[in-house]
Amino acid sequence: MKVDGKHTRTIWLEPDGWTVSAIDQRRLPHEYVIATLTSLDAAAEAIRSMLVRGAPLIGAAAAYGMALAMHADASDAALAQAYDTLLATRPTAINLKWALDEMRATLQPLPPAERAKAAYARAGAIADEDVAINQSIGRHGFALIDAIRARKPPGQRINILTHCNAGWLATVDQGTATAPIYHAFDAGLNIHVWVDETRPRNQGASLTAWELGHHGVPHTIIPDNTGGHLMQHGMVDIVIVGTDRVTASGDVCNKIGTYLKALAAHDNNVPFYVALPSPTIDFTIDDGVRQIPIEERDATEVTMMTGRTASGRIETVRITPKDSPVANYGFDVTPARLVTGLITERGVLQADRAAIAAAFPERSAAAAA
Amino acid sequence: MKVDGKHTRTIWLEPDGWTVSAIDQRRLPHEYVIATLTSLDAAAEAIRSMLVRGAPLIGAAAAYGMALAMHADASDAALAQAYDTLLATRPTAINLKWALDEMRATLQPLPPAERAKAAYARAGAIADEDVAINQSIGRHGFALIDAIRARKPPGQRINILTHCNAGWLATVDQGTATAPIYHAFDAGLNIHVWVDETRPRNQGASLTAWELGHHGVPHTIIPDNTGGHLMQHGMVDIVIVGTDRVTASGDVCNKIGTYLKALAAHDNNVPFYVALPSPTIDFTIDDGVRQIPIEERDATEVTMMTGRTASGRIETVRITPKDSPVANYGFDVTPARLVTGLITERGVLQADRAAIAAAFPERSAAAAA
Repeated sequence: MKVDGKHTRTIWLEPDGWTVSAIDQRRLPHEYVIATLTSLDAAAEAIRSMLVRGAPLIGAAAAYGMALAMHADASDAALAQAYDTLLATRPTAINLKWALDEMRATLQPLPPAERAKAAYARAGAIADEDVAINQSIGRHGFALIDAIRARKPPGQRINILTHCNAGWLATVDQGTATAPIYHAFDAGLNIHVWVDETRPRNQGASLTAWELGHHGVPHTIIPDNTGGHLMQHGMVDIVIVGTDRVTASGDVCNKIGTYLKALAAHDNNVPFYVALPSPTIDFTIDDGVRQIPIEERDATEVTMMTGRTASGRIETVRITPKDSPVANYGFDVTPARLVTGLITERGVLQADRAAIAAAFPERSAAAAA
Repeated sequence: MKVDGKHTRTIWLEPDGWTVSAIDQRRLPHEYVIATLTSLDAAAEAIRSMLVRGAPLIGAAAAYGMALAMHADASDAALAQAYDTLLATRPTAINLKWALDEMRATLQPLPPAERAKAAYARAGAIADEDVAINQSIGRHGFALIDAIRARKPPGQRINILTHCNAGWLATVDQGTATAPIYHAFDAGLNIHVWVDETRPRNQGASLTAWELGHHGVPHTIIPDNTGGHLMQHGMVDIVIVGTDRVTASGDVCNKIGTYLKALAAHDNNVPFYVALPSPTIDFTIDDGVRQIPIEERDATEVTMMTGRTASGRIETVRITPKDSPVANYGFDVTPARLVTGLITERGVLQADRAAIAAAFPERSAAAAA
């Protein structure tokens, strides 16, 4: 999507044919900095330090990390070491392992002399596939937004609420929850996005607001506490969020607080949709609340806050009493009963076992085998 | 309650018999500073700048402001001017006007020479009445917590969740939502409090955590997004919050985000209680969502954050993209259907018209007249 008027992806190959560049997301929204990655170690550190983040983007970055490794040394030993190094960066990210397995399967059979070229080609294809999936999500989600437009008086603003960042910054381009939003905006619909700040880490205020603003999409940052009030007063037409994992029966694991917005949407008859690429569906589990382990993250995400002072310096400050303990659960689970539908690359599905299995019969059957 | 082991109120008369001291709440939790108020203007500025805040405390501070005015000049003109000056500080605070009316009714009939002494006496009585009301709330709320204790295995921790600061810092002492908590803690119950950070302004992380910590009550700060997850996993036994206004039919207006916690409590069969002194009930309105205007507050409460740097300086930083708009609704309304009960100085009531009218027949009848 656009940054300062220029179409940009989160990660790309430079014209030199081997250097990889990526937006340094740790610096947003305070600074826009492009990092240049020229080695396996740089790529691994970029993933580990969350210079790049978001499951699809991590996959693409890992693929490019393999390519950078092959550029330097295409031996079997280097291939194995690159795989292990990258896999260790964010051990729980499903897309990371998937991308690394793809890369290894492509490269291992080749003679070393052909591996670098093949690695860049496959990494580029992985990035392009992510964009294509998100564009499909965007088309299917657009239809939902356009149906809301059709029910309103002509030109009336359509209000979309989102939580966290399932935006293009979390992917290679387009995003998942944001794909329908960008599609609707680019089609000229009068949309406006309520952006949940999304404590802790503030990915909404830091990333979603930044990317919507740069693309020109009208939006307003709100504290996470605000969505219920807005829905009570008819100020939200649709909620669209992303997800980290969806169970076979349609329970949705996403950034902590998503469940509260789903409850408010349900209480006020506001449709609540979840946008996802189908690899996010975990066909091996059913009950999200009982079966998905919820990661507890570092307390400093809650206790510390980074921003810019009036004089322009970037500072990190402690915002809580120094002796107060903090709990930081990264995710929660929204039961399928609260989800109006799942926006996937194969269309909009009911959040239930039968509909999900019918849309992805090959994966559902494989999990049952 | 206790600060550094010493019993402290939020506002008090010094031994000199005329100087008034108060905790400067703008500096918490980063610094503990006592402000000394020696004039009407100092008292007015303390209320205006939120050095003191919380409806009951504002009332007491206004009463002491009248006393300080009478200490300097007890003429009729000075009395009228003090009333007007203090009333203009926070125009929407109900307790402010109530306290000023009380003071004027006490002082006006007296000869000027007797006014200062009478003013300090009445201000002290207003402060003591607030404490007595909160102690009653504490006793009634304690019974609810003790009933939870009785149902659990001996000694098992009782988890209480609260939102915002309806603590002793918002009153003269004890607090409203915290009165049952302090009562239970002082009675030796094994309690633990989940403290919602409470964006924006962070009154939970800044004030509730600070006061619980200083009194020694076990607690954990959580982002506002977290409560639903905790309730899904049986980690909350009871929710107790405060309120800024309750309608005749039991709808509850409180800090933004309260409604989301009430929804989660309802969805997980967790009892949701609201603690309040009865003057908070507005018998002139019924439908909170439709009839209570919600104050929109300054965007800087969302965009800016104050804390302490690693080197110890207190800094304010901007945490959002500079061009992103922000909305800041101060309150939301929790419909009575989601409220398990109201903890008042006259006991625990159902949140419905009949129960409220039966408990406060004199006020209900007056409103109907």
